[in-house]
Amino acid sequence: MNEELRRVLILGGGLLGTSFALAVHRACPDAVLECIEPNSEHAARLAQLGVSKHIYSRPAEVTATYDLAVLAAPSSVCVAHLDFAARHATFVMDVCSIKQPLCDAAESLHLHKQFVPSHPMAGKAIEGPVGADASLFVDKTWLFLEDWTPPAVIVRLVEAVGAKPFYVADAAAHDAMVACVSHGIHITSLSAMLANDDWRRAKYPGLPDVSGPAFWDITRLASSPAAFWADTLIANADNVVQYLQTLQMYLSRFEQALSLRDKENIVTLLETARLARNEWSDNPHS
Amino acid sequence: MNEELRRVLILGGGLLGTSFALAVHRACPDAVLECIEPNSEHAARLAQLGVSKHIYSRPAEVTATYDLAVLAAPSSVCVAHLDFAARHATFVMDVCSIKQPLCDAAESLHLHKQFVPSHPMAGKAIEGPVGADASLFVDKTWLFLEDWTPPAVIVRLVEAVGAKPFYVADAAAHDAMVACVSHGIHITSLSAMLANDDWRRAKYPGLPDVSGPAFWDITRLASSPAAFWADTLIANADNVVQYLQTLQMYLSRFEQALSLRDKENIVTLLETARLARNEWSDNPHS
Repeated sequence: MNEELRRVLILGGGLLGTSFALAVHRACPDAVLECIEPNSEHAARLAQLGVSKHIYSRPAEVTATYDLAVLAAPSSVCVAHLDFAARHATFVMDVCSIKQPLCDAAESLHLHKQFVPSHPMAGKAIEGPVGADASLFVDKTWLFLEDWTPPAVIVRLVEAVGAKPFYVADAAAHDAMVACVSHGIHITSLSAMLANDDWRRAKYPGLPDVSGPAFWDITRLASSPAAFWADTLIANADNVVQYLQTLQMYLSRFEQALSLRDKENIVTLLETARLARNEWSDNPHS
Repeated sequence: MNEELRRVLILGGGLLGTSFALAVHRACPDAVLECIEPNSEHAARLAQLGVSKHIYSRPAEVTATYDLAVLAAPSSVCVAHLDFAARHATFVMDVCSIKQPLCDAAESLHLHKQFVPSHPMAGKAIEGPVGADASLFVDKTWLFLEDWTPPAVIVRLVEAVGAKPFYVADAAAHDAMVACVSHGIHITSLSAMLANDDWRRAKYPGLPDVSGPAFWDITRLASSPAAFWADTLIANADNVVQYLQTLQMYLSRFEQALSLRDKENIVTLLETARLARNEWSDNPHS
């Protein structure tokens, strides 16, 4: 398996990059892995794990060539290093949670045959390589784009680390979809946390004592790292703003129906949400 | 323990009422429990459990008297049966998720020495006695009001079923607090589900395939029973509307900051939410 991918370079030894290194090492013990990680703490942690033959502190140190370069850094950093990666590897795959800026950059560099935009639907609230896990991708969806068909050898590698490939039409569709199920959901969770904390500080210091499992589940994304999420949300700002408008439309409907004590309308909203969730749960892939 | 509470009548054999019957039976095997449950299916299920000495189909059938009557029905039903319960029991306790309508009714019936407004912070998405569980209240907060002090014998009963008593100032504070941590959180979860489903139907049928754990956790309350929640939300409408306005203020801040690509402001919002959640987690009771 993956005979053509003997030499892999990973740019970024954070949670995803380090997890991918561990997963590839476990699935393909003969593959030679090398990493670029500028943060010396992260690099030390990566060295401890013993899966990276060499760890560079910056791209300029790299002189070798590879079968695959994996861009596992914030999206703006990945865009900036796309040209470097393409000059050092047969294939370049990114694992960013947005696709349009990457595809645009790859397009302007004429990398259509070399570049594989992708997005593993896996993560953790713990930042950096400390949370890295060889099983992070097991049974998780790994998104590819239909108009940037991945070579079979890369699909096999993704399957080898346990992920399930799934194809979305193009970068625009991908970014709109994750604005909905991921980025918009993130802001929803954080806004609920902020609204609750607003009431705690203003009037009800005992609120945490009264909170139950529903509160803790719905606000859990608030513990995520701020810097990563700020970049991600800004890179997908137009789609996320549109999602927030849809969300606010439904919140306004609830607000209006409650103001009017309009029971029929409230039951309709509650029941529509219940049926929608049932339909989503019945989806064969979920 | 609970020597004064030998005879207990439970009005309502739904999830909470049946769980309480099971929990009291386990904690105090000598207590005599009787129930009122108009729904024949629920009554049959309750009979199977074997913890209720007698099951009445309506209050008019009850001629005996009790040490405690527990109102475990929707709040409007509990209000309507408060007078009946007070005539048949030394103490009357309700377990509704809102307190103002109950306290108002008890006040006008001059039940200050008899009535114990309370609210166990426990529940499940499964409706009716099918989901009932003798351990439902174990380690859960059981709210009482400071201005309706419960008699020691009732506090001991609540502790005997495993719950932790916690005191909130009054009905107004209670209802505002649950509007925040429970009722408002509920609408947040459902609105996110509705917004996601809107996008699925309008443009992206593949959305469920792209959804990850964050989506499923944040929207999980959408599977709750609509009828119960419609009553609860309407009974607490003013507070919930106020909470939704606070929530929409934060969503608008995110929306505006994203529209302007205002990174500093976005980082501030994300970081404030992260610190708030840490503070809540550090609360000794959570």
